[in-house]
Amino acid sequence: MAEPKRRIDTLVVHGLIVTLDENMTVLRDGAVAIDGPDIVAVGPTREIESQFDAATTLDAQDQLVMPGLINAHTHSPAVIFRGLTEDMRLEPWLQKSWRLEAKFVSAQNVRVGAQLAQAEMIRGGTTTALDMYWFPEVMAQVAQQTGFRLMTGPIWLGIPNAPDGIPMEERTARGREFLQQFRHDPLIVPVVQPHSTYTVSKELLQEAWALANEFGVWFNTHCSETTAEVEMVTKNAGASPPRYLDALGILSSHTVLAHCIHVPPDEIDLFAQRGITVAHCPISNLKLAAGIAPVVPMQRAGVPVTLGTDSAQSSNDLNLWNVLRVAPILQKNAYGDSTLLPAPDVVKMVTRDAARHLGLGDRIGSLVAGKRADLILLDLDALNAQPLYDVYAQLLYTLGRDNVSTVLINGKIVLRDRVLQTINEADLMGQARELAERIGAEAGES
Amino acid sequence: MAEPKRRIDTLVVHGLIVTLDENMTVLRDGAVAIDGPDIVAVGPTREIESQFDAATTLDAQDQLVMPGLINAHTHSPAVIFRGLTEDMRLEPWLQKSWRLEAKFVSAQNVRVGAQLAQAEMIRGGTTTALDMYWFPEVMAQVAQQTGFRLMTGPIWLGIPNAPDGIPMEERTARGREFLQQFRHDPLIVPVVQPHSTYTVSKELLQEAWALANEFGVWFNTHCSETTAEVEMVTKNAGASPPRYLDALGILSSHTVLAHCIHVPPDEIDLFAQRGITVAHCPISNLKLAAGIAPVVPMQRAGVPVTLGTDSAQSSNDLNLWNVLRVAPILQKNAYGDSTLLPAPDVVKMVTRDAARHLGLGDRIGSLVAGKRADLILLDLDALNAQPLYDVYAQLLYTLGRDNVSTVLINGKIVLRDRVLQTINEADLMGQARELAERIGAEAGES
Repeated sequence: MAEPKRRIDTLVVHGLIVTLDENMTVLRDGAVAIDGPDIVAVGPTREIESQFDAATTLDAQDQLVMPGLINAHTHSPAVIFRGLTEDMRLEPWLQKSWRLEAKFVSAQNVRVGAQLAQAEMIRGGTTTALDMYWFPEVMAQVAQQTGFRLMTGPIWLGIPNAPDGIPMEERTARGREFLQQFRHDPLIVPVVQPHSTYTVSKELLQEAWALANEFGVWFNTHCSETTAEVEMVTKNAGASPPRYLDALGILSSHTVLAHCIHVPPDEIDLFAQRGITVAHCPISNLKLAAGIAPVVPMQRAGVPVTLGTDSAQSSNDLNLWNVLRVAPILQKNAYGDSTLLPAPDVVKMVTRDAARHLGLGDRIGSLVAGKRADLILLDLDALNAQPLYDVYAQLLYTLGRDNVSTVLINGKIVLRDRVLQTINEADLMGQARELAERIGAEAGES
Repeated sequence: MAEPKRRIDTLVVHGLIVTLDENMTVLRDGAVAIDGPDIVAVGPTREIESQFDAATTLDAQDQLVMPGLINAHTHSPAVIFRGLTEDMRLEPWLQKSWRLEAKFVSAQNVRVGAQLAQAEMIRGGTTTALDMYWFPEVMAQVAQQTGFRLMTGPIWLGIPNAPDGIPMEERTARGREFLQQFRHDPLIVPVVQPHSTYTVSKELLQEAWALANEFGVWFNTHCSETTAEVEMVTKNAGASPPRYLDALGILSSHTVLAHCIHVPPDEIDLFAQRGITVAHCPISNLKLAAGIAPVVPMQRAGVPVTLGTDSAQSSNDLNLWNVLRVAPILQKNAYGDSTLLPAPDVVKMVTRDAARHLGLGDRIGSLVAGKRADLILLDLDALNAQPLYDVYAQLLYTLGRDNVSTVLINGKIVLRDRVLQTINEADLMGQARELAERIGAEAGES
């Protein structure tokens, strides 16, 4: 008599499974078995089907199945401002962005922005984001509803009239509340995120760092995005942003630094010694004429580099596929060698390697038994997906958000055959239009 | 009694009409009236509906309506090879590409490739391409069937065993036959296109130039894509590619030069004096580490710059939206000024200005009465399209091929609600898969 099959929640069958496991296994006619939030098995469809009986079976025929993408740097609720700060120099851009924030960022608007952003990311195959914005607790509540995996947490930014109304001296205490509230959440990964060395005082940077260590969570900040920033910090603090952070003891294997464009070789070596992770945002960097980050030298030195969209105010959307395409070709050209950043390595930068270096390597980033089921299905039965000779090149250079048909996060189907399952898209679009009318009417004056 | 309404073929109503006319008129709730191949009127929906009665009415509510995009440089049937030449240096890349061509380029395979390419371009909102490949007569026949507007024509390329089997000494005569055959075609725009100064002899360049003048058609070639090319031509011909072409009398207002990356200021001035047009292909250029073309200095000197995808062997798809996004941000960064290449100007580079400088300014490139009806509808009722504050920034930086719902070329609906009207997509995908299997099995050895 045959063994009885194990009852599980979900089977994905007959897919081209790009596991991103340690052997970079790719399975034709493969299957993923999912129970609760977990991947319980990955293998040939026939073998998996013989072992499991699922409540829901997703047929992935003519589909590529891979881990969900990880956006390592964004300010996602700012989608509500996209298109309002175009073709501007960085300084006026920043000033206008902060005026818009002061005027329009409220818990209610962040709720709409977070819903829009998470819906856009899910639809585009991004399943996790490291996300720095006002009202992180609202963003987290939205993620609990949408089913999105969100790394977020308290921010510190020394501007007058913080839109959340929290006085600077209370931010650390309020941050602690956030960390306590969400530390055991299955979807929310608390992080501590002061904005930068040029916008946050030494004392608050130290408080934030202490808070991160108190809870054993990641520390996320901006670093060396512009020459102006480097000059300002060097003048005021007596050291460049990386050296200044290091003097405060903040550079560690739990530290993520966004941008890192203007970093000389000795600072790259420092990054490698301290084990920090870089979040590279090439589209935002180019659009703001901020420069090209030295990704090749950083990788050669052993500094892990992840990829982010940055905010829709600079990028202008949350489409990580565009970043995937631009990052490698920009480095190939900058370092004059078209063999650099080969396609498989770049796919790892938004999946397995990103997960590992953001502290989630045991949970997500590859399709292996024991990890959470964060995975996406991409239509290969599409003009842009054929012919298919090289899976990784196809993922980087021709597939995109429009190929994403189905998305699971933490075992739950959040997009199915292009229909959002946890978000009422029509309602949300109505709210977006209403908010845009109000913002658009006033934005000219702000 | 009211005036009787004029009977026409097609009305597009209730759209956000981005005309790209001389005043950059944008109409909310606007309409385009189309009869035969022509736009007969553009205006407010109510006004247009009062004048015309159409056999077919397309409701463009929540859609943006604009001229179709013009891809100024591609080798589109090479989509059949995408993904086979990844992460390689340019020289081996070129050698492998040519080996693949020698082995697999036939009239039959070019037919499949052209169908795939034109289907992909139509679906992505590209309605015209300047397209250099083997078997231009096959590409042209395919375009007549798909309804795509194709600029193509005879090529000259000095490699052993030309895949079309035409001996070098017969190419000009065969080219003349092409020009005679297609000169009055409503969709095919014949052009003369020797590959480059480093792959075609002086005599044949001169013959090709004479042929272009005999028919009064455009002359399209590659120029100064790599430093190796510039060095080789300088060594062999005693002048850089632009200077050499100029010595042959080939630089003119009917000349399109693709790439133009390694051109010093004096050659930019020469371009401006002669009135040539540049086809800039930033994604291909970055991927092959070929360099960044000096678009800003060229535009400042008055050299018209258009945009192209180049071949899917280097880009890897025919998605002009990616090029639209990358071209401006690359220049902003390269010249350290984020105000450069503002969004409306970049949209013109793939519509009105491209049409004008490719000799089609009287026919296409803007939505005005008297031009051919080449227009595309983009869904604005999509997460990536909202909020919408800045139409041109949205077109560059967040809209894409996936927003394209409906496409008309020469008055004919070729894509309707995302369904191709002139191409059996399922059949075509089947052919693509079959061809890919044959190529993939042998490509490793080639």
